Amino acid sequence: MENADFKHFGKLRSKLFVIVFGTDTPAGKAFDLVLLVAIVLSIIVVMLESVRDIKIRFEEIFYILEWTFTIIFSIEYLLRIFISKKPKTYVFSFFGAIDLIALLPTYISLFVTGGSYLVVIRAIRLLRVFRIMKLTRYINEARMLGQAMEGAKRKILIFMGAVFTLVMITGTLMYLIEGGENGFTSIPRSIYWAVVTVTTVGYGDIAPHTVLGQTFATILMLTGYAILAVPTGIMTSEINKAERRGSIKDKICQRCTTGNERQSNYCSKCGERLEEI
Amino acid sequence: MENADFKHFGKLRSKLFVIVFGTDTPAGKAFDLVLLVAIVLSIIVVMLESVRDIKIRFEEIFYILEWTFTIIFSIEYLLRIFISKKPKTYVFSFFGAIDLIALLPTYISLFVTGGSYLVVIRAIRLLRVFRIMKLTRYINEARMLGQAMEGAKRKILIFMGAVFTLVMITGTLMYLIEGGENGFTSIPRSIYWAVVTVTTVGYGDIAPHTVLGQTFATILMLTGYAILAVPTGIMTSEINKAERRGSIKDKICQRCTTGNERQSNYCSKCGERLEEI
Amino acid sequence: MENADFKHFGKLRSKLFVIVFGTDTPAGKAFDLVLLVAIVLSIIVVMLESVRDIKIRFEEIFYILEWTFTIIFSIEYLLRIFISKKPKTYVFSFFGAIDLIALLPTYISLFVTGGSYLVVIRAIRLLRVFRIMKLTRYINEARMLGQAMEGAKRKILIFMGAVFTLVMITGTLMYLIEGGENGFTSIPRSIYWAVVTVTTVGYGDIAPHTVLGQTFATILMLTGYAILAVPTGIMTSEINKAERRGSIKDKICQRCTTGNERQSNYCSKCGERLEEI
Amino acid sequence: MENADFKHFGKLRSKLFVIVFGTDTPAGKAFDLVLLVAIVLSIIVVMLESVRDIKIRFEEIFYILEWTFTIIFSIEYLLRIFISKKPKTYVFSFFGAIDLIALLPTYISLFVTGGSYLVVIRAIRLLRVFRIMKLTRYINEARMLGQAMEGAKRKILIFMGAVFTLVMITGTLMYLIEGGENGFTSIPRSIYWAVVTVTTVGYGDIAPHTVLGQTFATILMLTGYAILAVPTGIMTSEINKAERRGSIKDKICQRCTTGNERQSNYCSKCGERLEEI
Repeated sequence: MENADFKHFGKLRSKLFVIVFGTDTPAGKAFDLVLLVAIVLSIIVVMLESVRDIKIRFEEIFYILEWTFTIIFSIEYLLRIFISKKPKTYVFSFFGAIDLIALLPTYISLFVTGGSYLVVIRAIRLLRVFRIMKLTRYINEARMLGQAMEGAKRKILIFMGAVFTLVMITGTLMYLIEGGENGFTSIPRSIYWAVVTVTTVGYGDIAPHTVLGQTFATILMLTGYAILAVPTGIMTSEINKAERRGSIKDKICQRCTTGNERQSNYCSKCGERLEEI
Repeated sequence: MENADFKHFGKLRSKLFVIVFGTDTPAGKAFDLVLLVAIVLSIIVVMLESVRDIKIRFEEIFYILEWTFTIIFSIEYLLRIFISKKPKTYVFSFFGAIDLIALLPTYISLFVTGGSYLVVIRAIRLLRVFRIMKLTRYINEARMLGQAMEGAKRKILIFMGAVFTLVMITGTLMYLIEGGENGFTSIPRSIYWAVVTVTTVGYGDIAPHTVLGQTFATILMLTGYAILAVPTGIMTSEINKAERRGSIKDKICQRCTTGNERQSNYCSKCGERLEEI
Repeated sequence: MENADFKHFGKLRSKLFVIVFGTDTPAGKAFDLVLLVAIVLSIIVVMLESVRDIKIRFEEIFYILEWTFTIIFSIEYLLRIFISKKPKTYVFSFFGAIDLIALLPTYISLFVTGGSYLVVIRAIRLLRVFRIMKLTRYINEARMLGQAMEGAKRKILIFMGAVFTLVMITGTLMYLIEGGENGFTSIPRSIYWAVVTVTTVGYGDIAPHTVLGQTFATILMLTGYAILAVPTGIMTSEINKAERRGSIKDKICQRCTTGNERQSNYCSKCGERLEEI
Repeated sequence: MENADFKHFGKLRSKLFVIVFGTDTPAGKAFDLVLLVAIVLSIIVVMLESVRDIKIRFEEIFYILEWTFTIIFSIEYLLRIFISKKPKTYVFSFFGAIDLIALLPTYISLFVTGGSYLVVIRAIRLLRVFRIMKLTRYINEARMLGQAMEGAKRKILIFMGAVFTLVMITGTLMYLIEGGENGFTSIPRSIYWAVVTVTTVGYGDIAPHTVLGQTFATILMLTGYAILAVPTGIMTSEINKAERRGSIKDKICQRCTTGNERQSNYCSKCGERLEEI
């Protein structure tokens, strides 16, 4: 009888697995949808809680809602561990880690004030949304973007190193030129200004007042304007490469091995009929 | 005699059709031009009306002008329905819908104050301007841009999702770091700041004051600076693809009229040998 | 004797022509250099004149300098007309027109106050600098950029039309949402704000204060952020096309007519030796 | 015995050379790492020194640290000269010059106040970091970026000339339109505003107040928005070219070892038939 129980239990587990982890069955889709809605709601609750006027009026309701959501997600997390065949793989996977981290803030808030606001990290869980939508196409596009970023990594790093050196030297010079009375009270603060300027954000909380400082700022802005072209150029080039790599593999001609575009029926080189993929 | 009337009426209708909907005859062009001028004037009237000093002086004139334009456009709209062979097709077409929506604000203003300002939606009607200019070239270019956007859609969506997650988490952290006394009074407001920063708009209405906040903002700005390269890269790549697809028409297959790339020897659709060009 | 005079005069004229219009002889280069320096100096004079403290001290000197430069340039202009074989061609050429326009402000200042500041238009004359530097390469690059802009023209126009419609509708909506007490005092002013926001300039002189307004502004900023990718993509694609067009013509193989890169010695298609260009 | 000493000394020198200049041995890597850490620390010291509150408390410690680092770097500099076989080559090399310049600020600070802040120039020495990391790949990427910038140089210069002319004329016009009471107190200051606007930095320290000025600013912003596409397009195109040239190595000619493009059949340098890859 124990055996039968175990069997019955095994069936339940694999049934639950299809619902909780899968997205192909209607039940699986519904589960993911409900989950996403719950995540969004729990984030909205925390956001509204940070608005003083709203908090004062609904403090108790928010408190209850917050704990309700956290307990639901805690149960969901334990369920996921329980039903997966290799619990360790899930726990140490990207989504497994995020699922856990997204739970902690509310529990932490028991000890540290303000901690509960960190539940916005649940936003990362929303990435699951791509699993419900036409899955593979989005994953392909995302992988393509990932590849482009991977390829651009080293170049962007060199670029960032150059920008970093630039803002450090510029910031120091501006600290010497403008000085504390114009808002450039220290080198770190001047570097902050240089970043604000070179990235064309331009808050205006600190701005040069002397003629020399403004001349210098002018040069920095024009440099930043031209420099902006570099990461864009790098990224564009990498995206192009990733796209080409991605599109070439699509439909290889079996006679002459030429790569063809996805929508092609015949090889553009030798006229051989291409197989569907 | 009724029949003759009907015939006469049919002739008039098709004559009007050529003038109102067509752009090939001088009368058709003139009609569209007058219409465009009237639209521009009606928008200017509403804009000037919103300037207090001007409104006080010319209130009555503006009121008369606004209703004059609206009545003219109402007549035009009814005329269009009346003379088109398939009125339903027109009413539910893009331009048909815009034509109607562009009429409503003035009528709504009878019941709701301020509603009349929404006539600026008539600006969309100005898209007709492309119909008077060398038509096909502009439409081709616009279609090309549309294709590129269509192609970039999914990638931009993924990108926007990532940016959204980034500003949400950053905004919350800044709310905890800076707090209400520095302008970060709530999480939604901090997220607003994060968007202002990451997009390099940088109003400066909210700006970090603490050292930690400024360090954090610096990282966010540099990230935003590098991130800006992504949609640009995506768009450039898609425009390139759309252009290439557009230039495909270079080598038309003589069997199935599919456009092929310049370097292709065989049609990618039907395998027909392509002639050199 | 008159004939001899005329001959002598003709010689002088062609000698002057080489100096004034040419850049190949040392004298021609020197003339252009002196001219450029004079233009820069005359611009600096006008700029300094606009600074109140400096103007008060050196008013007389500035007045004399301004007229000295203008008279020198007037003489130069008359000289150019006098020595060119086809004076009309010069007068109605781009540089001829600029040379004249650059003279007018000082003369106008006799009648209208402040007119003399317009001599900064002389900055356009500085374009002659490219004539002294390694001429042809710069002209080729400039022509390439011009071609790219020509090619992008229609697409940029469509894009600008879309942006224009967007800021007009957004501006009106923000006028209705925020209203005069938050700085959105009229529709034109709200449209000004929308442009400041969508272009990511973000002065901060007008900024949304209501929650709805900030939400709306957030959407506009993200749109502007993504939209920025469009002209960049268009321009990149056009520059690529212009470059390809430019580089193909470089070295055509005489056997198989394949275009080769400038540094190639042999055709990459058929191995034929390429002639130098 | 002198000879033996000399020999011994020669050995020591070449041993030190491997450590100080090399990065392949563990000792060489350790030396570079320690050096980088020391540089970073010395920069942090100077930055903290510029913060008033921190300076007051730790003034003496900072003074000692600053001189300690400078003396260490001075010894390192002399050591480098001493052990390199061609001292002159090192002294006049890029890194040799930077090593010296990075020493000077502290010594200068003996005579000029504030001079010591310039030690941030040591940030440039951090470029050595690329020598420790997987060397060649980063150098290749950096060289690629350098090539792209070299190629874009002339075009960026023409572009900058155009922007310069634009801001000069715009700045002057705005000075005339807005005038001193709205912050446009002089032409140089108005040009500063024009640069702040056209580069989309937008501090907001100066902003147009008149209707005409705002209209004008709107046009300038939209122009700047569209113009931004130009350097990006140039840079992207050059990076593409540099990448392609880099990927040339795909097909090496077996006679003259020139790299050829993938689709080439014959070597572009010597005409040798290329083998398929």
